Amino acid sequence: MESWLPGSSGPAEAGPRLRGLRGADLAASACLLSGAGAEAGCSAPAVAAVLPAGGSGERMGVPTPKQFCPILERPLISYTLQALERVSWIKDIVVAVTGENMEAMKCIIQRYQHKGISLVESGVTRHRSIFNGLKALVEDQPNRRLSKPEVVIIHDAVRPFVEEDVLLKVVTAAKEHGAAGAIRPLVSTVISPSADGCLDHSLERVRHRASEMPQAFLFDVIYEAYQQCSDYDLEFGTECLHLALKYCHIKAKLIEGSPDLWKVTYKRDLYAAESIIKERISQQICVVMDTKEDEEHVGHRLEEMLKNELNHVKVTSGRDLQQIILEECYNFVCVNVMTSDFEETQKLLNMLEESNLSILYPVVVISVQFLDYESVPFGQKMENLMRIREFAKEVKKTNILLYGLLVYYPQDERKLQESLRQGATIIAALIKERNSGLIGQLLVA
Amino acid sequence: MESWLPGSSGPAEAGPRLRGLRGADLAASACLLSGAGAEAGCSAPAVAAVLPAGGSGERMGVPTPKQFCPILERPLISYTLQALERVSWIKDIVVAVTGENMEAMKCIIQRYQHKGISLVESGVTRHRSIFNGLKALVEDQPNRRLSKPEVVIIHDAVRPFVEEDVLLKVVTAAKEHGAAGAIRPLVSTVISPSADGCLDHSLERVRHRASEMPQAFLFDVIYEAYQQCSDYDLEFGTECLHLALKYCHIKAKLIEGSPDLWKVTYKRDLYAAESIIKERISQQICVVMDTKEDEEHVGHRLEEMLKNELNHVKVTSGRDLQQIILEECYNFVCVNVMTSDFEETQKLLNMLEESNLSILYPVVVISVQFLDYESVPFGQKMENLMRIREFAKEVKKTNILLYGLLVYYPQDERKLQESLRQGATIIAALIKERNSGLIGQLLVA
Repeated sequence: MESWLPGSSGPAEAGPRLRGLRGADLAASACLLSGAGAEAGCSAPAVAAVLPAGGSGERMGVPTPKQFCPILERPLISYTLQALERVSWIKDIVVAVTGENMEAMKCIIQRYQHKGISLVESGVTRHRSIFNGLKALVEDQPNRRLSKPEVVIIHDAVRPFVEEDVLLKVVTAAKEHGAAGAIRPLVSTVISPSADGCLDHSLERVRHRASEMPQAFLFDVIYEAYQQCSDYDLEFGTECLHLALKYCHIKAKLIEGSPDLWKVTYKRDLYAAESIIKERISQQICVVMDTKEDEEHVGHRLEEMLKNELNHVKVTSGRDLQQIILEECYNFVCVNVMTSDFEETQKLLNMLEESNLSILYPVVVISVQFLDYESVPFGQKMENLMRIREFAKEVKKTNILLYGLLVYYPQDERKLQESLRQGATIIAALIKERNSGLIGQLLVA
Repeated sequence: MESWLPGSSGPAEAGPRLRGLRGADLAASACLLSGAGAEAGCSAPAVAAVLPAGGSGERMGVPTPKQFCPILERPLISYTLQALERVSWIKDIVVAVTGENMEAMKCIIQRYQHKGISLVESGVTRHRSIFNGLKALVEDQPNRRLSKPEVVIIHDAVRPFVEEDVLLKVVTAAKEHGAAGAIRPLVSTVISPSADGCLDHSLERVRHRASEMPQAFLFDVIYEAYQQCSDYDLEFGTECLHLALKYCHIKAKLIEGSPDLWKVTYKRDLYAAESIIKERISQQICVVMDTKEDEEHVGHRLEEMLKNELNHVKVTSGRDLQQIILEECYNFVCVNVMTSDFEETQKLLNMLEESNLSILYPVVVISVQFLDYESVPFGQKMENLMRIREFAKEVKKTNILLYGLLVYYPQDERKLQESLRQGATIIAALIKERNSGLIGQLLVA
């Protein structure tokens, strides 16, 4: 069973990861996943995912359904799709959305370049939406690109941080047991109220778990359960594991999941998700500079200072920029000393714009200049640098957040240290917050 | 029962509220709360609260216990204490902390000027900590200032957003029923696993609730329950309602609580709490300026722009600053036109420092200057204004975050509109983020 474990794949969460690996990996894993693969020339797809996304988000207390609420200006559901499509062995992803949101969903798929997504119309309840998604996978229409998978994952559009690890575990367990689902310890005691609104009894916390997503099923099991289940189930139920048990007598295997599997339910969860995403994309800073040799160069000293002050962040030198962009670094500090004002920054911005790196996350670029009081008057230097506001406005259109940083360069060594430290603090603050209201500003250290 | 409802009190959440109202209000409410109050000259205190805070925070994945994790540089538990001590009719608050954290807790109480707090040593489990807190209230030592309350609230140190409304409801219900607790709908289905890690059965979601805090009890009920309960209960139980039922046959009244009652459990909850607090203290901006008469004054136009652009935020004019400070506004835009550079800002900063407003939350002050290209060269103006860095460093010591904003003042009406709009955007960004890494910066609109 473990043989089709895609060895080199890491977590599939909506954090920075390599994209563009689907093709070859998918074919290889699909062969391994499908029992018939080797013999049948690897034609059978093995794993698909169904994502019910027809909810209205009434608990959130906001008019937009929660799966479409923006996080760093991108809808939540796009992060979830990203997490699933990065898993090379998931071939198809079927999303069930309301007719009303169908066009919006198509725009999201196009804008964020999601691949392998099919849309179906959602039902009025969660179970009906899932059933519609399953039907789309099984219906044998000649011109459809979908075909019936061996295992189907069911996940929520509002759980963006699902990792490949847990997906693999539930799929593996589903192949063995017929059904599997992620669980978590209970945070609160669960109680049962009596009819008059008083406590009837408390449940023992250690004997119960919260049932979370993802879940996975042998396709035939869950499809049969949905075909057999009552209207009452379809209207009022929410739990797929329960259907598999009730109608197919399959006892699902339970898999301990990580806290990150939690469901974005309330407004506070959106805040939490945004902070988590910001934190994840702020873990690496690339320092690009216009000199490569001189280790005494003040740019190198700034790089050293960043390494010391931000010791939880990986600071890399931008010697192989293309590679660093491929590795999905979202933070660049561009040091301009030898060249005039913005030459190096311009080169970097052009490269970033060509790379499409900023499609998924806002990329921060901080253009650093040094000010030696003795050679250029402060006021004049500032005036030259105010052009950054125009650049910033321009690159904001492609989701690049450009800020300027002017670092004093006094002769006094102690003061220079202080300037550099202050510079590192400002750089960390800008990267951490990604505040688009402050783009084009010229900060001074 | 409703007669002791403190009419003028609003929610008790850890948001901006009037402080310093405890004395007289407390006495009045205590009289009403205590049945014997009127006859006995109002000597009997009625309601106390016990806060177990001995937890290690292992679920958080951080070394600091979660109740001591900082949010805007202030420990989480201080927000919870603030929420409770603002309720005039809660007389005593007993906090159970480990011996190890006793000194740190004392420092927190002193630094954030909490009132009416008593500390006891926590036990090794939650139940033992609560029991210690109850004992402290009942033990009749001559030189202790605590005395036995009629009703005791039990709350968690890590639920900072508790409101007076729900506290009142649980206390009222406890007086009537003997016990009461807040509940919430379940977010996930609860399941029961079998011994082999498979699904045994799912619980019907609509028939169950999550038991949250606060809870309240007639003191004699919960104290008796703790005196009678077994070592097993004290070691492995967590739920007070259950003890009241098991040992005193009291069926607690269940009260629907708001989503804000959630327990800060994981790191993401700290992020969420920080965002909620930032949002709450950013709802009001006070504009202070050095002219009062001229409605065409560019400061007034900026104020109008702020009202239009930030229509979710209350923008007030700082005509009665003392009153606005008393009402706990945490954001000030100080417009300096008539007076030289920082005169008006200095006056405001002095007033804020005297007010102690920034003890609980960081106060943002944005010092706005206008630049008319024709009268003063840009560079020179900038150099004058760089002094703001020194002021900012100084007032940071008292938790005031000072930023500068230079607004272009072109003759062209359309361009002036644009500058003012940009200024409003920057002001909103600074207030929303409260980023201490950017203090002393001079931003340009």
